Amino acid sequence: MRTRPIVWAISAGLALAMTLLVAWAQDAPADPLQQTAQALFQPLPELMLDPDRPFSDELVELGKMLYYDPRLSLSGFVSCNSCHNLATYGVDNLPTSLGHRWAVGPRNAPTVLNAALHSAQFWDGRAVDVEEQAQGPVLNPIEMAVPDEDYMIERLASMPGYVAAFDAAYPDHDESLTYVNMADAIGAFERTLTTPDRFDAFLTGDGDALVELEREGLQVFINYGCAGCHGGPAIGGTVFARFGVVESYWEATREFVTIDTPTMPMDVGRFAVTQDQADLYVFKAPSLRNITRTYPYFHDGSLWDLRAATQIMARVQLGREMSDPELDALMAWYTTLEGEIPAHALQLPVLPASSMLTPRPSNR
Amino acid sequence: MRTRPIVWAISAGLALAMTLLVAWAQDAPADPLQQTAQALFQPLPELMLDPDRPFSDELVELGKMLYYDPRLSLSGFVSCNSCHNLATYGVDNLPTSLGHRWAVGPRNAPTVLNAALHSAQFWDGRAVDVEEQAQGPVLNPIEMAVPDEDYMIERLASMPGYVAAFDAAYPDHDESLTYVNMADAIGAFERTLTTPDRFDAFLTGDGDALVELEREGLQVFINYGCAGCHGGPAIGGTVFARFGVVESYWEATREFVTIDTPTMPMDVGRFAVTQDQADLYVFKAPSLRNITRTYPYFHDGSLWDLRAATQIMARVQLGREMSDPELDALMAWYTTLEGEIPAHALQLPVLPASSMLTPRPSNR
Repeated sequence: MRTRPIVWAISAGLALAMTLLVAWAQDAPADPLQQTAQALFQPLPELMLDPDRPFSDELVELGKMLYYDPRLSLSGFVSCNSCHNLATYGVDNLPTSLGHRWAVGPRNAPTVLNAALHSAQFWDGRAVDVEEQAQGPVLNPIEMAVPDEDYMIERLASMPGYVAAFDAAYPDHDESLTYVNMADAIGAFERTLTTPDRFDAFLTGDGDALVELEREGLQVFINYGCAGCHGGPAIGGTVFARFGVVESYWEATREFVTIDTPTMPMDVGRFAVTQDQADLYVFKAPSLRNITRTYPYFHDGSLWDLRAATQIMARVQLGREMSDPELDALMAWYTTLEGEIPAHALQLPVLPASSMLTPRPSNR
Repeated sequence: MRTRPIVWAISAGLALAMTLLVAWAQDAPADPLQQTAQALFQPLPELMLDPDRPFSDELVELGKMLYYDPRLSLSGFVSCNSCHNLATYGVDNLPTSLGHRWAVGPRNAPTVLNAALHSAQFWDGRAVDVEEQAQGPVLNPIEMAVPDEDYMIERLASMPGYVAAFDAAYPDHDESLTYVNMADAIGAFERTLTTPDRFDAFLTGDGDALVELEREGLQVFINYGCAGCHGGPAIGGTVFARFGVVESYWEATREFVTIDTPTMPMDVGRFAVTQDQADLYVFKAPSLRNITRTYPYFHDGSLWDLRAATQIMARVQLGREMSDPELDALMAWYTTLEGEIPAHALQLPVLPASSMLTPRPSNR
């Protein structure tokens, strides 16, 4: 009984302190950098849902199984995760990916992390969303090389585990196991792959989330106008731009390119999709989330050095040279974009068993 | 207060019932099949430790990182998990594995699950334990194709994340980052890969763990003497035997072999290791744990059908034909050997970042 007045006194004191603290915080001078950043970028959402598409745990679980299953390739050796490895931030860290019969692909594999925030998929934007994107590599002869949609469905339908998983994921469909549904499920899984990072903490109000050098880097990024192409929640992924506005990126990169870089003809970019002269050498500006981990850089994966890649962007897009202190600061800010991969995505599913009806893998 | 006598009465009644139950259990007729099984097989241990080798969480965590890291291959595309995929019970479910530049290997990839219980590693027993085994594929030109040990160490030493992980795993070593330690760590991870199953429940005393048909299958297995080669805790992995004692396995399998089977010259087996004529066509009898999931079968992966594989074993090793009911029963018992893969092993590690010093991957 005797302690009660003391408890009251402490409680009252704490309440007063809280009130004063809130009042002080409201009167505190606003952080202009934080306010500018909040106007240019947005924090990553927890999920990247499309309101027009269904979403459920069963759909995500099915999508994850398919994502990790090498039986989505003719050889039974290549899965989505082979080139978009979630243990390495959704990429393979190769200049360009390897596929069926060791084919070397023409472009660098972009990360699946936060990709559902992009306005279109692939470097040239030829798919509207992650669901449409997922239909591509399975049938691409130099990627997973499945002969046709029917073959893929025959394989999946031969496995009771998949038949049950498709039924659970698409309860309202007369025919749940279709090629489109397969890709839709993979897309649903990808819509869970956001990677909140320290920059999100800064954007959502924690002014102390960035140290001084990182703040300087953010300021450099904003001052140079980089956010014009690399803005929004993914810090990129929503703008198509010609790569090499002021000078040819091809010439500019040669001094940094190493022997392992594929020597391919210059990539025409989005022109291949639209046949519009204005789209020649136009690519989707990639997301800079996790940029420290998604090396090598550019659509051809020709550069391993993020600092050099940054200087080249300034040079060929803006006609400017960045100073060493500016590059130091940018490199520091980039580390704040290294996020956390969702734990559920890293938990490998035990895949359904094949059956005697399952078409056999072929490495030819 | 009033409830106490009731509580006493219930307690006394329960104690009496327990006593009677225990007495009845002790008097219950022993299960001869269970007793025979307990003499021939042993339940899987939780860990498969070597008393002469250190073991720690840090060692296992490092081993897991290495196991999943495609940078253990020259191409940066092939990891231990590529051919020993833990999402598919530690195998690739291919007749023989694919490796560097799409090379097709000569033998079927055995599962890593429970492999540390084997008396030797590889089909021909050329490595004494999982630690020695792990040194092989990294340097094999048709597997991971790393040029030499120094190259591998240079790559690992270029990544601060690995330097720290090796130091943590080998705190007493002057030089923690060595090729042998790399393989030792992978071995330590593999020593955690046991898969307890329903048959273990039966062996450890739960007579109801197997239904009648599964018991019959176990009885058939014992009656035919299969446990002579497939005994012990892994139900195999400890005996070398000529494949084709009574007749040539090669002839016997032809009727079951499908078009996708590699047509390779007959494998001389352990003879290649010992140069001893007695070891011609001798192989290690594989473990039957998870046998329903480690298709296709035999050292050359030539058979997809477990029932046919079983019949062929009876025919070429014992000169006998199994009846359909016997095969039905065996197939049922096999399902009791399908175990649970440890959750920690399925949790993909986020791998250390490469640095500008990391030797680049090469697909040539």
